[in-house]
Amino acid sequence: MAEAKQLSGAGLRGQVAGKTALSTVGKSGSGLTYRGYDVQDLAEHCQFEEVAYLILKGKLPNQAELDGYKARLKSLRGLPQALKEVLERIPKEAHPMDVMRTGCSMLGNLETEVDFSQQGDAADRLLAVFPSIICYWYRYSHDGVQIDVETDDDSIGAHFLHMLRGEKPNALHEQVMNVSLILYAEHEFNASTFTARVCASTLSDIHSCITGAIGSLRGPLHGGANEAAMDMIEKFRDADHAEQEMMGMLERKEKIMGFGHAIYSVSDPRNAIIKQWSEKLAADVGDTVLYPVSVRCEEVMWREKKLFCNADFFHASAYHFMGIPTKLFTPIFVMSRLTGWAAHVFEQRADNRIIRPSAEYTGEAPRKVEPISAR
Amino acid sequence: MAEAKQLSGAGLRGQVAGKTALSTVGKSGSGLTYRGYDVQDLAEHCQFEEVAYLILKGKLPNQAELDGYKARLKSLRGLPQALKEVLERIPKEAHPMDVMRTGCSMLGNLETEVDFSQQGDAADRLLAVFPSIICYWYRYSHDGVQIDVETDDDSIGAHFLHMLRGEKPNALHEQVMNVSLILYAEHEFNASTFTARVCASTLSDIHSCITGAIGSLRGPLHGGANEAAMDMIEKFRDADHAEQEMMGMLERKEKIMGFGHAIYSVSDPRNAIIKQWSEKLAADVGDTVLYPVSVRCEEVMWREKKLFCNADFFHASAYHFMGIPTKLFTPIFVMSRLTGWAAHVFEQRADNRIIRPSAEYTGEAPRKVEPISAR
Repeated sequence: MAEAKQLSGAGLRGQVAGKTALSTVGKSGSGLTYRGYDVQDLAEHCQFEEVAYLILKGKLPNQAELDGYKARLKSLRGLPQALKEVLERIPKEAHPMDVMRTGCSMLGNLETEVDFSQQGDAADRLLAVFPSIICYWYRYSHDGVQIDVETDDDSIGAHFLHMLRGEKPNALHEQVMNVSLILYAEHEFNASTFTARVCASTLSDIHSCITGAIGSLRGPLHGGANEAAMDMIEKFRDADHAEQEMMGMLERKEKIMGFGHAIYSVSDPRNAIIKQWSEKLAADVGDTVLYPVSVRCEEVMWREKKLFCNADFFHASAYHFMGIPTKLFTPIFVMSRLTGWAAHVFEQRADNRIIRPSAEYTGEAPRKVEPISAR
Repeated sequence: MAEAKQLSGAGLRGQVAGKTALSTVGKSGSGLTYRGYDVQDLAEHCQFEEVAYLILKGKLPNQAELDGYKARLKSLRGLPQALKEVLERIPKEAHPMDVMRTGCSMLGNLETEVDFSQQGDAADRLLAVFPSIICYWYRYSHDGVQIDVETDDDSIGAHFLHMLRGEKPNALHEQVMNVSLILYAEHEFNASTFTARVCASTLSDIHSCITGAIGSLRGPLHGGANEAAMDMIEKFRDADHAEQEMMGMLERKEKIMGFGHAIYSVSDPRNAIIKQWSEKLAADVGDTVLYPVSVRCEEVMWREKKLFCNADFFHASAYHFMGIPTKLFTPIFVMSRLTGWAAHVFEQRADNRIIRPSAEYTGEAPRKVEPISAR
């Protein structure tokens, strides 16, 4: 074996591990584009299903294409009986991301992708069915009801809120879900997407790729930041209390989630967008605590540490205002990021070489096995 | 963002992506060591449980430690009722690697690793329970029986064969399983292990890491080579027929599985070991076809292409002689490689930075969203 090249940093930071036409992240310090479109432009003018179509199929749909796509996704919301029975066997105390991972894996047994020509259909199916998986398990394990997952809601976001809360959401809530799902849809070679691509590089099936990606997104360094932010801000009584507590946390050098980013250096372009929607929701529900608390946290972190809010921070209050339990925040991320993961799988397959890096050996020198009696 | 460094090759080939003390692969063209011990030395003098102990706990056990470890693994073979019920809902036609992936993921719901201090126990549990998972599903879906997975067999290999075939294996078969599990236990930063490390780098739980690794091992470029080799050799009537057919395949430039290796350039050190055991099994069962066919394939590939057999090629005939269905070959790989995967997870956690490479952008230039009516 030729000597492997030494990289400068751990975690492959700043090292190109492949090509993508799907997104750019943090070019000139901020900015996020999906297939050339700025995420702000998309969040302002598109529905999530349009963006999913863009990411998965390569272009923004026209009206007929969008109508057809939404009708198709609507028809794919149902859960196979065996999958329902599996979800019913997952306890209430389980980690919701373990439920998502298991639901995706089980579906792979029932609707196996046997040929890559099925990849587009398999991705559409997962896009349609993930809200059903998480809500079916949640409502069964927490409320003891076997919900009907085949609703006639117009959008994925409304479908999710309807199943979760048992009634159709209002237009504002549907719109915020829509924006949120757009913001989380794709983010280049983050750890979960890279997991999906490593798996895809062995030419494994798409359910394996997505199952693996869910497992990586579960990690607190990756997908769990909005939940951690919620856990923090809901402890604060008001903005002054928040400032006092945060100053203490900073002094004790405690980790504060929802700020800064591995790639963005100036700002996270998703923050301004979700922040304005959190403000609208606060006005709608008459909140006088959580939104002002969140704003103060943002001010303190910038003033003290020059750290900006990332996408996750104002998502916490926004989701909370819509009555979404904190532990379901990361599964919503899955419902959205599935689009990016799947598109990266397609891309990896189209120009594949197995991803098999080398390691620097730091272990024992060669040695002989001693007889067990002599150890 | 600083400009990302360009790597020379696709698939991170030859690029150091981290450190490991667990193994060396292909140093000076061949050779495989686990924590400094040559795999040939280990396969000759150790039981698989000793090697698992070595990989997971850092040293070869003495007699008391080995006895204690084997007793402990024996006590961990049982399946939770909910997991049995999940396995019963996976159809006979499912891909056995999808079953392993789902079984591991489901166990994560029932026995969640909530703290990294549990990682050693979780790995031992998976090591003990993987044979139970695959055999319980296989025998239920194929034979309609709910087998007792808590046998008193002395070793993991015997436990597997006993459940699969319904009777205790003879000493030769137990020994071959032992050797086979040693040979597949660990192999540095291969794609499935790298998947586990990427997942671990988000600080996700061990069931997510192992579930992801199983999904990657499922890929035909990675774990499926012994199955593909079996599919090929069982079509050959005798050695001359094998030679004739292989010459045709070579002429037609068809892919022939079980030969060559991404890292080894001279030989795969595991081949000579499993080959001798395949020969012993052939003599034991009175085979006059499959072993001579396999030897001829090896000769032809070396003569024509200077390609050597890798670990997978003689595993095909060896497993076949023991009555193991071809589709269970890769799940045996899982039963073994779990040790390497888990040890890499421990290692990643002990010195972690999230694995988040960059990508070379090849997509559209920045553009504006057109109104849907104008598309």
